[in-house]
Amino acid sequence: MTDPVNRVVLAYSGGLDTSVILKWLQQTYNCEVVTFTADLGQGEELEPARAKAEMMGVKPEHIFIDDLREEFVGDYVFPMMRANALYEGLYLLGTSIARPLIAKRQIEIARMVEADAVSHGATGKGNDQVRFELGYYALAPDIKVIAPWREWDLTSRTALIAYAEQHQIPVPKDKRGEAPFSTDANLLHTSSEGLVLEDPWAEVPGYVFSRTVDPEDAPDRPQVIEIEFEHGDPIAIDGLSMTPATLLAALNELGRTHGIGRLDLVENRFVGMKSRGMYETPGGTILHAAHRAIEQLTLDRGAAHLKDELMPRYAELIYNGFWFSPEREMLQAAIDLSQKKVNGMVRLKLYKGGVHVIGRQSPDSLYSEKVVTFEDDAGAYDQRDAAGFIKLQALRLRLLGRRDQ
Amino acid sequence: MTDPVNRVVLAYSGGLDTSVILKWLQQTYNCEVVTFTADLGQGEELEPARAKAEMMGVKPEHIFIDDLREEFVGDYVFPMMRANALYEGLYLLGTSIARPLIAKRQIEIARMVEADAVSHGATGKGNDQVRFELGYYALAPDIKVIAPWREWDLTSRTALIAYAEQHQIPVPKDKRGEAPFSTDANLLHTSSEGLVLEDPWAEVPGYVFSRTVDPEDAPDRPQVIEIEFEHGDPIAIDGLSMTPATLLAALNELGRTHGIGRLDLVENRFVGMKSRGMYETPGGTILHAAHRAIEQLTLDRGAAHLKDELMPRYAELIYNGFWFSPEREMLQAAIDLSQKKVNGMVRLKLYKGGVHVIGRQSPDSLYSEKVVTFEDDAGAYDQRDAAGFIKLQALRLRLLGRRDQ
Amino acid sequence: MTDPVNRVVLAYSGGLDTSVILKWLQQTYNCEVVTFTADLGQGEELEPARAKAEMMGVKPEHIFIDDLREEFVGDYVFPMMRANALYEGLYLLGTSIARPLIAKRQIEIARMVEADAVSHGATGKGNDQVRFELGYYALAPDIKVIAPWREWDLTSRTALIAYAEQHQIPVPKDKRGEAPFSTDANLLHTSSEGLVLEDPWAEVPGYVFSRTVDPEDAPDRPQVIEIEFEHGDPIAIDGLSMTPATLLAALNELGRTHGIGRLDLVENRFVGMKSRGMYETPGGTILHAAHRAIEQLTLDRGAAHLKDELMPRYAELIYNGFWFSPEREMLQAAIDLSQKKVNGMVRLKLYKGGVHVIGRQSPDSLYSEKVVTFEDDAGAYDQRDAAGFIKLQALRLRLLGRRDQ
Amino acid sequence: MTDPVNRVVLAYSGGLDTSVILKWLQQTYNCEVVTFTADLGQGEELEPARAKAEMMGVKPEHIFIDDLREEFVGDYVFPMMRANALYEGLYLLGTSIARPLIAKRQIEIARMVEADAVSHGATGKGNDQVRFELGYYALAPDIKVIAPWREWDLTSRTALIAYAEQHQIPVPKDKRGEAPFSTDANLLHTSSEGLVLEDPWAEVPGYVFSRTVDPEDAPDRPQVIEIEFEHGDPIAIDGLSMTPATLLAALNELGRTHGIGRLDLVENRFVGMKSRGMYETPGGTILHAAHRAIEQLTLDRGAAHLKDELMPRYAELIYNGFWFSPEREMLQAAIDLSQKKVNGMVRLKLYKGGVHVIGRQSPDSLYSEKVVTFEDDAGAYDQRDAAGFIKLQALRLRLLGRRDQ
Repeated sequence: MTDPVNRVVLAYSGGLDTSVILKWLQQTYNCEVVTFTADLGQGEELEPARAKAEMMGVKPEHIFIDDLREEFVGDYVFPMMRANALYEGLYLLGTSIARPLIAKRQIEIARMVEADAVSHGATGKGNDQVRFELGYYALAPDIKVIAPWREWDLTSRTALIAYAEQHQIPVPKDKRGEAPFSTDANLLHTSSEGLVLEDPWAEVPGYVFSRTVDPEDAPDRPQVIEIEFEHGDPIAIDGLSMTPATLLAALNELGRTHGIGRLDLVENRFVGMKSRGMYETPGGTILHAAHRAIEQLTLDRGAAHLKDELMPRYAELIYNGFWFSPEREMLQAAIDLSQKKVNGMVRLKLYKGGVHVIGRQSPDSLYSEKVVTFEDDAGAYDQRDAAGFIKLQALRLRLLGRRDQ
Repeated sequence: MTDPVNRVVLAYSGGLDTSVILKWLQQTYNCEVVTFTADLGQGEELEPARAKAEMMGVKPEHIFIDDLREEFVGDYVFPMMRANALYEGLYLLGTSIARPLIAKRQIEIARMVEADAVSHGATGKGNDQVRFELGYYALAPDIKVIAPWREWDLTSRTALIAYAEQHQIPVPKDKRGEAPFSTDANLLHTSSEGLVLEDPWAEVPGYVFSRTVDPEDAPDRPQVIEIEFEHGDPIAIDGLSMTPATLLAALNELGRTHGIGRLDLVENRFVGMKSRGMYETPGGTILHAAHRAIEQLTLDRGAAHLKDELMPRYAELIYNGFWFSPEREMLQAAIDLSQKKVNGMVRLKLYKGGVHVIGRQSPDSLYSEKVVTFEDDAGAYDQRDAAGFIKLQALRLRLLGRRDQ
Repeated sequence: MTDPVNRVVLAYSGGLDTSVILKWLQQTYNCEVVTFTADLGQGEELEPARAKAEMMGVKPEHIFIDDLREEFVGDYVFPMMRANALYEGLYLLGTSIARPLIAKRQIEIARMVEADAVSHGATGKGNDQVRFELGYYALAPDIKVIAPWREWDLTSRTALIAYAEQHQIPVPKDKRGEAPFSTDANLLHTSSEGLVLEDPWAEVPGYVFSRTVDPEDAPDRPQVIEIEFEHGDPIAIDGLSMTPATLLAALNELGRTHGIGRLDLVENRFVGMKSRGMYETPGGTILHAAHRAIEQLTLDRGAAHLKDELMPRYAELIYNGFWFSPEREMLQAAIDLSQKKVNGMVRLKLYKGGVHVIGRQSPDSLYSEKVVTFEDDAGAYDQRDAAGFIKLQALRLRLLGRRDQ
Repeated sequence: MTDPVNRVVLAYSGGLDTSVILKWLQQTYNCEVVTFTADLGQGEELEPARAKAEMMGVKPEHIFIDDLREEFVGDYVFPMMRANALYEGLYLLGTSIARPLIAKRQIEIARMVEADAVSHGATGKGNDQVRFELGYYALAPDIKVIAPWREWDLTSRTALIAYAEQHQIPVPKDKRGEAPFSTDANLLHTSSEGLVLEDPWAEVPGYVFSRTVDPEDAPDRPQVIEIEFEHGDPIAIDGLSMTPATLLAALNELGRTHGIGRLDLVENRFVGMKSRGMYETPGGTILHAAHRAIEQLTLDRGAAHLKDELMPRYAELIYNGFWFSPEREMLQAAIDLSQKKVNGMVRLKLYKGGVHVIGRQSPDSLYSEKVVTFEDDAGAYDQRDAAGFIKLQALRLRLLGRRDQ
């Protein structure tokens, strides 16, 4: 805690916690704080963060507020979606995938302003501290990292608020009491965890959800949409081309309306314990289903099965914070190569919390009605070939059977 | 086709196709046919098969009609469910898992009646021929296998019906014309494929579905159920203990009511082409979700992630017909070992096609509220440990970063 | 056998078997035969093949004799070596890796001369038929493939020789009797199998070896060499830069002298049976050891372990003939990405059949004496970090231990 | 450092370092020290450890000296050998596999003597601290672990020796100066690392080796031996049945004589850095080759390839200290199941540092000369089957080729 620090770039949301951190950094390290606030589509006003930072003495030229939405979706979310990534079979990695981008931008700013340290507001029990810091270290191996939650003695809400008041940091009324749960949001998802969610047997209370309507309150009529893909990425909805962030936002709106993408999960954190979270990933859930559907038509079996076998590892790497690692990049190279011909259209029905693929077509389809048909295929496939195929597949099992009987 | 065959055991459904096969075997091989009809919960009367077989000259003691439902669910479906097996990310393997049991029983009967051959009615384009025959060969390496669809010249529906009429095989009215699609059913699922389903862009017509109501017609109120697990297998619903087959049937009824478990899929067949199928797996879909949920609480991360990585391979083995193979048994041994403490209760909400986990509890839970809590954990977890953890995780990335910058 | 064929490109070695095939094709299909003879460094005169082909009526412009040595080593052997590929833990895939190149060139020639078929001399029991034909079909899906060994009735040596004599094909004296084993050779290796090698308990007789001296007869003094790598490929030996084929030839010579690279193996063929073979891969064995050594210094752990996990699959794909498959290309993309900084020098000692790495250095080394040293590291590594690292690694095991005790 | 400790079980070698630790524990924690010295075949007198411990005030009933050689080889080394485990392609895991057994016995003793802590002498930079402590925590989640090297301030050799002299701990003459490298030994191997070995370009000096003669000094005549296996484990050499530890000792003697099992390796430590080590694993190297050879004959391809794919993960788990983890146990269950019929005899030639398999036979062989033979096989294999096999293997590649051309 006592290494001299001259200038630190703080990932700053403008909220109470990171405001306290801002002040604490100034005081503890007697250093200049540079704030960085990213717009990842979390749906909050960011300008108030500027005012607050200024009020706490941050120089105007040291306040960075960046709109990273397109970069986030185009360079992080979509590549991950190409992998059909699901952590522990279910989680679409909405928080995990945002951290490396924040870390990267923070390091870029640190270089620009010649800072010697970076800091974040993630706690010592969670995955996010790991994700931030692995990103920092991978991109700037000799940067100093300050994680106040692991260092300070503000170990209770009361202590935090006392510190804020003592240092003239405004405490919003609704932050006075303990929040009933904590959230993280970006264009891909909102996650909620803690407190009222800590009993995994208790149903998630309705007020926790913010990005989707309850499926029971969704429209009684299904809605059919069409998503177009190019090289594995979605490029249009219902014929309307969109940028990555715009497209994801549009899918989010559709998902919200139809109550799609809620997930109640008990997951295994990288730091070793289980936690219970609730995720809302409306657009991402639709996209995941659609991407699998277009791959069904356009990916060869060998490529598809290899992708399925590599996916759990890939998802684990992202969850654990290893986006900037050689092994993630190797897997990405393999995955991306497979997407060259993943082009075409998927038709989906959205209804009461469900996403149902009902059709897919592609100029690059590998599906051959002529070969598969129950009707006469005019010699496209010789059924007699199957006899030899099975005979040789069986040979080792027969040798085995003869030995073991 | 001309090897002498004395006695052949035919997997006989009693339908038109296998009746034609029965007759064709008698004529072509001049041999005795033994019929075996399995009750796997396909929901058809099986006694008519006896009458038909007798009518075609099969000796009464050579007609086997066996109720295999408990064995099917207990020894095949549940072990597979322990693996969370999904082929190509989505398919619950309802047809694939039934084939090895049929093959096994057929071989047992062949031994009993001293038959020298077995036969089945699967076509030369599909996966089922492979699954049947790999099962036969693994269990009886020197058995002769007769696959009429790959041998005879009845290559059109018309030819088949002509053959039937010529040999006094009754042709049901509704079989005169071409069926608009073909189905396979058992206690786990019904699959449909062919003809009207061959265009993957065209939505599956409503009349194809037989096991589930349309989600739009499902009840407007969700239903909450509780499933209890022991050693990874479900043993009770809403407190009522049931045998495996009874339990799956009860889940099927719940799934049917709420429109759960429909899947429109383009998949990669083992024989090399893509096909489009529609699956209804009402109970299995509920079970899959519930099993994952109870594992979330009771499986260690190491076990859970290893299972996730092995799963695609395991599912592929079953899909391809390698149930009776050393590698499937090795994977099963690993999976089964992991299930010792997979005990507890899962609460699910069924609604309009969706299965939503809303709670889980276990006497063997690894979830520790004390460790994970946002509140003071009284030293259960020392946040300072995370610093060292991250530092060492990052070390290789830092060495890499230093080299590459 | 009776489809009309106009022109067929035959993979022609000039030996007795493919000469008989040449004639048989002309007679059976009444077609024009185009011969293709590849120099892959097998160490045989190729011009006699031209004379023989002409003698059997092949048009001079339809005789192709190509030196593919540089392409073979640069585009096939080296990419495979980047993966450290070993089939079943031991086999360096010398035969497997040559087949796709022959198939590719054969298809190119077929396009040039507008042939409608290709043919090869591999038997119906081996892997090579699969490798050739998967290559053909992948590159020219609609080509006709003729595999005489699976078609004709020349099922004994006697019948083959009678056919040759009947058609004025010269039969070398030493081919009159049955050869005691069969071989395949190229710049990477020589394989031997069959007959005297068929008893896996009997030691391989000394006369079978052709590429290496017996280790017991190798020099009594070890020889030390240095191999330089760039981007994962070897580029120089003892400071002398060489082209790929020249370099491999030089390593072969070194390996031959020191009795390096003999392998007596019982392996599993793709077609389902076990076979026993003897391989001599002198240069490849040295290269394999050297490549692993330079990776030890320059590959990050994440990349290295991922490569090790993917390797068996990659080797199996090559062994089974799937070089031209999306999944092999995906794995290659991942592997190649990892090799960017695999640069440096490896020092090896060759002695009496053994290759011993004794040193390695690199401008891109990730090895840090400063970090690893037993002596004071001036803060490069804080041993206290290890406590937290272990604590969090242990957390899940402790929760498990508490539950299970 | 200041938690009260009553009684601590120390893994005590009797050497200078652990003697200093013994004293330091007594002083720092003011607690009773219980010593545990394991005979794992390291080839040292253990009784002096008793005298030393007594001299430093350890109660006689608190001095444990256990011969664990049979348990070590039978329950740890052999199960690992069944997996053909190699870390990073080369390392036979000789140190890694000993740690869990020491940890397990230490915990058993802690329970017996009602100790509340355990301690070891591994440093803060290495893997062994992790292996010990993960073992402790898995078996006794609430034990206190004391790792003096991470706690104390004896950071130089001089400080350590000063401490020893100050506390009347005898310092052997040869320990006064800095040792030129550090070693670990047990029945499976001796490892050496540090100081003179820290430059990976410099050849390992001859005086570092202690378990093997230099291959150049090995006998000029090869020696042929036969090893018999039962269920995957070796049970006899040259017809002589032996217990596990005796057998491994005999193989060590053979390996020593012929200079077998030296390995110069740069490896990736779990704690994040690369290190260079030298390993001598004479008997283990022979055993590894022999086990692969007997598997070649008796393991089905499916089992063999699955084992090869799982092996790198399995080896990594052992290297990283996760012997007592559910995922290692799952993999072991799969591996052990595969070994039921791994029975038979392997013949090997030992010569000048090399182990050469020259024959293998088994009552449970899956190798069929009848099927594989180049000569007439009397219908054991129908070469025509290969045509269909290839056709269906090729189908997806042809569909792909048609699309992409």
